[in-house]
Amino acid sequence: MRDFLPEQAEQRQWLADTLRGVYGRYGYRQIETPALEDLRWLESAQGGENEKLIFKVLRRGIDPTQVRDVAGLAGEGLRFDLTVPLARFFASNGTALPRPFRVFQLGPVWRAERPQRGRWRQFTQCDIDIVGEPSMLAEAELIAATCDGLAVVGLPEFRVRVNDRRLLTALLKACAFPTEATVPVLVTVDKLDKIGLSGVERSLIDGGHSVVAVKALLGVLEAAREAGDGDGLADALPMGIDTGALEGLAAITSAVAEQSDRRLEIVTDLSLVRGMGYYTGPIFEVDAPGLGASIGGGGRYDGMIGRFSGEQVPACGFSLGFERLCEVLPAQARRDGRGRVALLCRAEQSVAVVLADARRLRDAGYVVETVPLAGRAKGVYKRLAAAGFDQVVDAVTGDLPRPLHTEP
Amino acid sequence: MRDFLPEQAEQRQWLADTLRGVYGRYGYRQIETPALEDLRWLESAQGGENEKLIFKVLRRGIDPTQVRDVAGLAGEGLRFDLTVPLARFFASNGTALPRPFRVFQLGPVWRAERPQRGRWRQFTQCDIDIVGEPSMLAEAELIAATCDGLAVVGLPEFRVRVNDRRLLTALLKACAFPTEATVPVLVTVDKLDKIGLSGVERSLIDGGHSVVAVKALLGVLEAAREAGDGDGLADALPMGIDTGALEGLAAITSAVAEQSDRRLEIVTDLSLVRGMGYYTGPIFEVDAPGLGASIGGGGRYDGMIGRFSGEQVPACGFSLGFERLCEVLPAQARRDGRGRVALLCRAEQSVAVVLADARRLRDAGYVVETVPLAGRAKGVYKRLAAAGFDQVVDAVTGDLPRPLHTEP
Repeated sequence: MRDFLPEQAEQRQWLADTLRGVYGRYGYRQIETPALEDLRWLESAQGGENEKLIFKVLRRGIDPTQVRDVAGLAGEGLRFDLTVPLARFFASNGTALPRPFRVFQLGPVWRAERPQRGRWRQFTQCDIDIVGEPSMLAEAELIAATCDGLAVVGLPEFRVRVNDRRLLTALLKACAFPTEATVPVLVTVDKLDKIGLSGVERSLIDGGHSVVAVKALLGVLEAAREAGDGDGLADALPMGIDTGALEGLAAITSAVAEQSDRRLEIVTDLSLVRGMGYYTGPIFEVDAPGLGASIGGGGRYDGMIGRFSGEQVPACGFSLGFERLCEVLPAQARRDGRGRVALLCRAEQSVAVVLADARRLRDAGYVVETVPLAGRAKGVYKRLAAAGFDQVVDAVTGDLPRPLHTEP
Repeated sequence: MRDFLPEQAEQRQWLADTLRGVYGRYGYRQIETPALEDLRWLESAQGGENEKLIFKVLRRGIDPTQVRDVAGLAGEGLRFDLTVPLARFFASNGTALPRPFRVFQLGPVWRAERPQRGRWRQFTQCDIDIVGEPSMLAEAELIAATCDGLAVVGLPEFRVRVNDRRLLTALLKACAFPTEATVPVLVTVDKLDKIGLSGVERSLIDGGHSVVAVKALLGVLEAAREAGDGDGLADALPMGIDTGALEGLAAITSAVAEQSDRRLEIVTDLSLVRGMGYYTGPIFEVDAPGLGASIGGGGRYDGMIGRFSGEQVPACGFSLGFERLCEVLPAQARRDGRGRVALLCRAEQSVAVVLADARRLRDAGYVVETVPLAGRAKGVYKRLAAAGFDQVVDAVTGDLPRPLHTEP
């Protein structure tokens, strides 16, 4: 975890405000949910590997010598994403919400990662979700809105990859992997970007999977890669796989590409997996060149809300990693109204008069800090400039601020 | 803990933005610190009763049957305020920060309160602090800035009470309470608003404190209440108490009252205590009529940063309870640009064309949601109006939106 100093915090604030503005035009409305959720919900929502990374909160008033298991020690945990809490929120408050419900969330999530470069145990996610819309209009709009947001905040280049969980499942079945192998095989395929096709092949065979099935799968992935995003992709799939999902993806990618007036790459990538276990349909991921990691992703998770409420409600979302996005954006120039003024005052001056003088300048549009002086003013200007002031004025004189570079 | 639905979340967002704007003109700069802090820091910072309410996070990879005490189970906890994390932040990052450092924080804190009306286990604080300024200019400015903020967000009436921890300590000593009685006696005096002078007297005597000391203390508090805020307050104090702190409070209250062009009540109240143990000088609290609880408070805590860094740095802050403030404010009317438009579309229309049409309207300043229609449109307008739309238009036609009340 880490601190954010003023420059960083202000950059983050600007980014949050800008994304909120873009998503607001699409009708996404903000909600807030608590940081802590019941562990029964967090651990049953198919969060995949992330469920192992939950920070659990110690129950109060327990006697550790009497408790024999972790379940007895903790009943709540810090949320590991904003999607599971949204599903719980919708199950709790759904009757008060419109359908479809477009929702915007921005807040911290926690994962007990081992400390390493670029991995933080607390980080911020910025999510948009559409709850209650079964058609692929939802996916297309989520991707379009995200691309709109990324373009508005100034990300110069990015690429969206899409896939469909149903295609992946059908593909593994066609390659004759047993059903129980689906999760471990997908976890390995998910590493393709890092270890390459040959690395995936080796890892799967070492993992004890059928060599015939592995060879068949790798053949399809390789053919799909060669086919690229064109019509050839359907030909790369084994016979008998329902290509409806593939046609859906083509409709999504062409709709997003057409409506965007900005340079945008959006491609179908049969090797895209996404970590979470809760996805049920199209999945997507966005990355920026040079970052070496995705800056966001999402997909359809039609089964999750029903697990909380009993009522099946279709849902789909796109989440941006706020810190990763900050990293790839150019720093924003601060704008402080008419400037940042040091109002110099002395201990013998009345506090009331100094405060009133500061107020006069604030009302005139300046950012004003009172700076008590002790002794001579020599060297003070240099310190003030270093502290970020650009103008200076003596209290009580009623003068207007003057630029700081005019050392007296 | 609780969820915030869109209307509430948007009201909160507006309040946060407005306070950030006011405080920004005073030069307070935003920082962010993590939710989890080391328990060694949280539990040693004299947070008073709040240290007992810390949510502790279970260490990872422990075997509960091998751990015999709570310290072995947890090493980190959720912050119970923003002041202790600020002191830790300044100790960690002080060399990169200006002095004095004016800092603004807005974020959640957690306390394991027993559930009751108006008490939440997660709530938001909005704090301003001045680190590195020893003079009472800091106190006066913090109070003035807070009053400015409360006036700008539209709080119609509020009252600030001030006191000084040094006066309280000297008073108890003059009444012949032993030093170790200071904390329990102050905790009881803190309840004066709820249980009255006679309740405080009974509670202290029942608590085993010297009847003579209790009578002496109650006599002073009663005389102080009768004296009000005038010059008589010094006369109400026992002989021999240093009245320097009282003169400081008078300078603060008159400075704040004079510089404010708004109706503002600010009074010295000898019975004001504030819960936290870390205060070392002036303390203050703000309340609004009819709320039955304070909406914020603060004070000087000169000793705390030194406990983290070894270097003594004076510090002073004012914290607003964000939820309490929300409760007493009138609801804000939403403003959605040119209005909230339902763009009606049908499954047979191309997603690309619908998205492009929505974009055209967004670029023209509307908030636009696409609404897929199935079957007849009858009754749809009523549902759209209930969902908060005020305009409607059919996709692909290129028309401008029309008011929703014109049912076709």
